[in-house]
Amino acid sequence: MIGLGTMGRNLLLNMADHGFAVAGYDKNPAQSVLLQQEATPGTTVQGFTDIAPFVKSLKSPRAIMMLVPAGKIVDSVIADLLPLLDQGDIIIDGGNSHFTDTALRDAALQEKGLHFFGMGISGGEEGARRGPSMMPGGDKEAYQYVKPILDAVAAQVNGDPCVTYIGPGAAGHFVKMVHNGIEYALMQLIAETYELMRKGLKLDNAAMGAVFTGWNEGRLQSFLIDITKDIFAFHEPGQTEVLLDQIKDEARAKGTGKWTSQVAMDLVTPIPAIDSAVSLRDLSKYKALRVAAAGLYSNELPTLNVDKDAFLAKLEQAFYFAMITTYAQGMHLLASASTQMNYDLNLTEITKIWRGGCIIRAAFLETMLTAYRANPTLEHLLLAPEVQSLIDETQAGIRAVVAAGITAGIAIPTYATSLGYFDALRTANMPANLIQAQRDYFGAHTYELIGKEGVFHSQWQGDATVMPE
Amino acid sequence: MIGLGTMGRNLLLNMADHGFAVAGYDKNPAQSVLLQQEATPGTTVQGFTDIAPFVKSLKSPRAIMMLVPAGKIVDSVIADLLPLLDQGDIIIDGGNSHFTDTALRDAALQEKGLHFFGMGISGGEEGARRGPSMMPGGDKEAYQYVKPILDAVAAQVNGDPCVTYIGPGAAGHFVKMVHNGIEYALMQLIAETYELMRKGLKLDNAAMGAVFTGWNEGRLQSFLIDITKDIFAFHEPGQTEVLLDQIKDEARAKGTGKWTSQVAMDLVTPIPAIDSAVSLRDLSKYKALRVAAAGLYSNELPTLNVDKDAFLAKLEQAFYFAMITTYAQGMHLLASASTQMNYDLNLTEITKIWRGGCIIRAAFLETMLTAYRANPTLEHLLLAPEVQSLIDETQAGIRAVVAAGITAGIAIPTYATSLGYFDALRTANMPANLIQAQRDYFGAHTYELIGKEGVFHSQWQGDATVMPE
Repeated sequence: MIGLGTMGRNLLLNMADHGFAVAGYDKNPAQSVLLQQEATPGTTVQGFTDIAPFVKSLKSPRAIMMLVPAGKIVDSVIADLLPLLDQGDIIIDGGNSHFTDTALRDAALQEKGLHFFGMGISGGEEGARRGPSMMPGGDKEAYQYVKPILDAVAAQVNGDPCVTYIGPGAAGHFVKMVHNGIEYALMQLIAETYELMRKGLKLDNAAMGAVFTGWNEGRLQSFLIDITKDIFAFHEPGQTEVLLDQIKDEARAKGTGKWTSQVAMDLVTPIPAIDSAVSLRDLSKYKALRVAAAGLYSNELPTLNVDKDAFLAKLEQAFYFAMITTYAQGMHLLASASTQMNYDLNLTEITKIWRGGCIIRAAFLETMLTAYRANPTLEHLLLAPEVQSLIDETQAGIRAVVAAGITAGIAIPTYATSLGYFDALRTANMPANLIQAQRDYFGAHTYELIGKEGVFHSQWQGDATVMPE
Repeated sequence: MIGLGTMGRNLLLNMADHGFAVAGYDKNPAQSVLLQQEATPGTTVQGFTDIAPFVKSLKSPRAIMMLVPAGKIVDSVIADLLPLLDQGDIIIDGGNSHFTDTALRDAALQEKGLHFFGMGISGGEEGARRGPSMMPGGDKEAYQYVKPILDAVAAQVNGDPCVTYIGPGAAGHFVKMVHNGIEYALMQLIAETYELMRKGLKLDNAAMGAVFTGWNEGRLQSFLIDITKDIFAFHEPGQTEVLLDQIKDEARAKGTGKWTSQVAMDLVTPIPAIDSAVSLRDLSKYKALRVAAAGLYSNELPTLNVDKDAFLAKLEQAFYFAMITTYAQGMHLLASASTQMNYDLNLTEITKIWRGGCIIRAAFLETMLTAYRANPTLEHLLLAPEVQSLIDETQAGIRAVVAAGITAGIAIPTYATSLGYFDALRTANMPANLIQAQRDYFGAHTYELIGKEGVFHSQWQGDATVMPE
């Protein structure tokens, strides 16, 4: 393991706990010391502060994982490693590298006779230590060599490890990126739920925590709902105020959500819930602008004029609906990437390994798994009968919640976007014919006709009947 | 002029009509013939099918404009030109090149002692012939040389030409790209308006045309509303059916809207109305998927249960509100780019040159111009008093329209997004504190505290009071 920060250290200790003899390297001696201190007695864990002896300590073919910040550091670590490695050695980049970087590194290292794996790891610190979900992409045969270690350290769900071979080249990092995109949207939906509860229903933290606790015992059960209920209760030892209330409302981001949206646009696959979450994180950073706009435009937001319990029941439906359509958008993007980027992704297996260890694990993934098992080439999750019945049941709830939020002026853009996506998706005849007509009118971009081959252009301004004025 | 397709030919003829002696080059002899045929008698227009005599025919310093498809063709034309040019010559790329390509070409040609201008041109075929809006970026001194020609051929509004020096490097193509992003959102909003009218109010084409005709005589007056009213009336000579009804509902795109969304994410500036328009164009392409989803999910959409005339009055407000917030998002992106990319953009001048010739010209731009003249460093258009009063007046209308659409199940995602953006923007306290808490909980990403310097991390799971279960 190269890079013994919390993630790298924890994952290495996890491997050691499963009986593998492991070694770690970090320039910073303090990290090596921590590694040794935290190692479970009886496990074989070596720490190095020089790279050459670290590499020498490994048996051939070497399997070396990096957990270092994405970007130039990955390239500089690879450059340091190269003179020390032999043909057939395996380098695994376990960080959140952009998949286009991974593709370049994969090609460059293949030429040198090395195997390169871009592997997404989800689960945070806790997951790394106790069992993450892992998404490795690269050479399929080389994968067999590291498979026993990855299978052992991964989260286990019903005896299945949450790791699988994802696909060639950068497929692993691509899938992890989309995982994070889904994560962005789910977090934004939870934030908007919080907004509706505190501003619309005037619930206090304890009451909101109770709602999330209840939800986490039902079909919304998921890691993110689970930690959110904790957050509503958390205060630093010795303090009485809930920490959440003291945290700035300016969200930061490391870029994986943004990458997902940008790539989805290149692949012509709409994922508006993720786009919306990215734009809302960005907007949160304009605090001074928001305060100025609030001064001009914010009336005191009215309490929602609703029965509290009835509204909360609808809100549960709304969240489930939006959550389902968010996963559906992410999976649709994976289906597109599978063909357009030749990743040949197995959506059933991906669903399976997302059930445990990762940030977007949720009870709903079992439903997804049933759907993909019944139809492994399912084009879109909303076409699955298991999902259709859930959408049918929750649709009225989200309509009521979005209409209420819109009417009261509470910002719930990602909820509204989720519903808008659904309404557009189920539109056999969209109004896009008008857009085609406009494009041909002003730019001679041509249009297609229903039931007729070819492209056509009209002299929209040429006909005397058109412009009578 | 290199590239004598409709755009290049029309712009060149426009120059000739203003008394400039011009020459055009196109490999395809047919284009040269057309150029000569269409030239106004008495003007000086030469056509070439070989590049060397074309270049030789120009006086020094040469000013050569290209209007060829964006991408590799631009580079190959430049490569053909280079051996024929002298220091100080000016190359103008009038196409829709990506601004990053323009920046590279600018740097490469500057090294060779040439001036390169990336110039966005809007107005379509008609605009090129009779007066487009033009957005040139590059060397400011070299601009003076071509200024008389550009001033003469540009659209004129109250005696002001719709062209101005935009900024260094790729500034011109950047601004044109954002212009197109705004155009995408406005077109999608018009499409959603059409959807509400035809499905919600069950209006026929004639009735919809009448509404748009009325709107075009009021504050919504704009090029896009104007051509839309024509489109509702247009049928091919000899046909009775309105052409619009025969056009496929699958919208195509050339990428400038997508680029705008992708770059806005890199610049951390939210433009969700444009993102939404891009995703809806993409969704329109999945016709088979939409038909399948419609089979599963579409009930017959109910007619909106509203008074038709009252609803149309609200719809006019809704469109105005969404249109204003769309321009505001685009201008906010330009303000961000101005500082982050050192373009030093003059938003007043940009507003001024968008008032005529271009696709997004609209009566509202006069209001924008008033706002920027009063405050040239205005951070966000919604902070201007002139705009505030319009938003205040139209807000109730868009809330009613979006709530009605949401309730009826009519897809109006970009309307909903426009309102969501506004509601989030005017939120002094967003729920993003929860997102920060979650990120720190699962990823130790740290958070910031209100009124306290620094970043902090908590042991969210460490406190016994947190996880009682």
